[in-house]
Amino acid sequence: VTSIHDIPTPALLLDAALLEANIAAMSELLPGSRLRPHVKAHKCTAIARRQLAQGHRGFTCATLRELEGMAAAGLGHDLLLANEVVDVERIRHIASRDDARITFAVDSSETIAAAAAGGVREVLIDVNVGLPRCGCAPGDAGSLADQARTSGMQVRGVMGYEGHVVGLEDAAERRTRCEESMQLLLAAHAEVGGDLISAGGTGTFDSNTWATEIQAGSYVLMDTAYGRLGLPFVQAFWVWSTVVSVSEKYVVADCGLKSLGMDHGNPEIADAKVWFCSDEHITYAPSRPVSVGDRVRIAPSHVDPTMAYHQQIHVIAGENVEDTWDIDLRGW
Amino acid sequence: VTSIHDIPTPALLLDAALLEANIAAMSELLPGSRLRPHVKAHKCTAIARRQLAQGHRGFTCATLRELEGMAAAGLGHDLLLANEVVDVERIRHIASRDDARITFAVDSSETIAAAAAGGVREVLIDVNVGLPRCGCAPGDAGSLADQARTSGMQVRGVMGYEGHVVGLEDAAERRTRCEESMQLLLAAHAEVGGDLISAGGTGTFDSNTWATEIQAGSYVLMDTAYGRLGLPFVQAFWVWSTVVSVSEKYVVADCGLKSLGMDHGNPEIADAKVWFCSDEHITYAPSRPVSVGDRVRIAPSHVDPTMAYHQQIHVIAGENVEDTWDIDLRGW
Repeated sequence: VTSIHDIPTPALLLDAALLEANIAAMSELLPGSRLRPHVKAHKCTAIARRQLAQGHRGFTCATLRELEGMAAAGLGHDLLLANEVVDVERIRHIASRDDARITFAVDSSETIAAAAAGGVREVLIDVNVGLPRCGCAPGDAGSLADQARTSGMQVRGVMGYEGHVVGLEDAAERRTRCEESMQLLLAAHAEVGGDLISAGGTGTFDSNTWATEIQAGSYVLMDTAYGRLGLPFVQAFWVWSTVVSVSEKYVVADCGLKSLGMDHGNPEIADAKVWFCSDEHITYAPSRPVSVGDRVRIAPSHVDPTMAYHQQIHVIAGENVEDTWDIDLRGW
Repeated sequence: VTSIHDIPTPALLLDAALLEANIAAMSELLPGSRLRPHVKAHKCTAIARRQLAQGHRGFTCATLRELEGMAAAGLGHDLLLANEVVDVERIRHIASRDDARITFAVDSSETIAAAAAGGVREVLIDVNVGLPRCGCAPGDAGSLADQARTSGMQVRGVMGYEGHVVGLEDAAERRTRCEESMQLLLAAHAEVGGDLISAGGTGTFDSNTWATEIQAGSYVLMDTAYGRLGLPFVQAFWVWSTVVSVSEKYVVADCGLKSLGMDHGNPEIADAKVWFCSDEHITYAPSRPVSVGDRVRIAPSHVDPTMAYHQQIHVIAGENVEDTWDIDLRGW
């Protein structure tokens, strides 16, 4: 057995017991098809396999690469691409697989035409519910559904991601603003039809009671931003780093901007104050004496772009590395 | 010949002529060994080979992986690891190569001991010149050099990175603060000895006249932060992205937090105002009408962590893709 003190750094650590606890906590609250786990947070089919083992057969993807990797891993029972694409050649490639059921989100005549040209059989109408990103105006959803059906595709329902709501720190405000978004989505669904009303994320997994399925992903690993919301999920992964330089007021470890998603700000270290990150370093002030060669766990502020920097993650129990999983859905 | 309009997105584009212009402009100002190009910005041996062809035989690296990759690519004439490491096993592995001359930076008894234990033959004393990161106190440099020599290693000189200065937008202030830092480094050098005084970056490549060699890296590709400093280098690379959704006030393209280093803030798009980035999207307001399927060039705010997200970069001339280079120094 390898000790975490013997692996090269920087490296990702995943606490196996905490991962299973997060998956179990979510599965109890949102069992089976009530959850369509989003793989964009972890980009790792080994983790998706654990989610499947807890009863979630459908998954959400953000990229064609994620669709391809999930299908190739035998996890293609019901994959939703919750994103718009117009690359007909790549759509055709994935839509022609006979080992995956794939539903594409569409929000315009152009994305409907690309899906139809690529041989896609099933779509959802992606509706803008307040986040200025993809999604049609709610009032256009019905006519886009008609276009999709006329193009020979099945319309399974609607999706609408309340991404402007999931990170709000006040739970009551999250609930209120989520309801506003979901009223838009329900109105669109009334025009579109279909069985699926797909929405939500880790921050609204419990308050969004209008969607038929929730697209949460971050809950399996968590980050410091979601950690402030009082959710029933715990930080389960870290960047593992070695202290390489010690000065009077601060120390420096070998984890930097190329190991961490930085859009949500600096990561956190227990019992320490993080000063700043450089390409390959983190400078921080520890509250206890630290020596060169000591190891430190760093909690990222945003899980998704952190995982996307790494090729593998070490699965640990205590201080033992029990397995190493490939982050095999990276790239596009 | 492939057109840039036919490649999957998001993808990196590198304008071959602008790359060569940046390399040539720097080589004219800092010829041969006056420049020790830093590979951490591009992480690409194909680009390093162009720098070597312009006369720079020595390179700067930030990671053991970069050392290993440069040596394996036949670019190991004189590699400096401008960073502290204590992984004796990996140090021994790289120090035992007979195809590379490798100099390690050291800043403490612990890093000297690790280098000696790993069979390292040559070191530089890394001196703190004002950036709170690695580097010993200037007054400790002489005794650390003695320790290194006593441990059987050659001391080639000093290094000290004025990273707190290279990004200052006022050129006169950059020069003044650079001089302050270099006076610290020169004082340390007087105690240490050796031929090398290694320092500097793209922002101080011309104002730092005290160092014997400059460790600039970003100048070959550039980013929007360095683009504001009035340097004689031009933006030579972009993330190439496809518009996937168009709304009344904004459009959305398929380039996001997993394609872009975000610590310096949002990227820029010509003739457009960037609103925000999500994991796989950028929302922006164009000044001219844009359609779904249009392609757009996105200029990153920080080159280093952007390159580190991508496995390859397409080398273009106008709208033709002439080659695709592996970003082969990624990871650790």
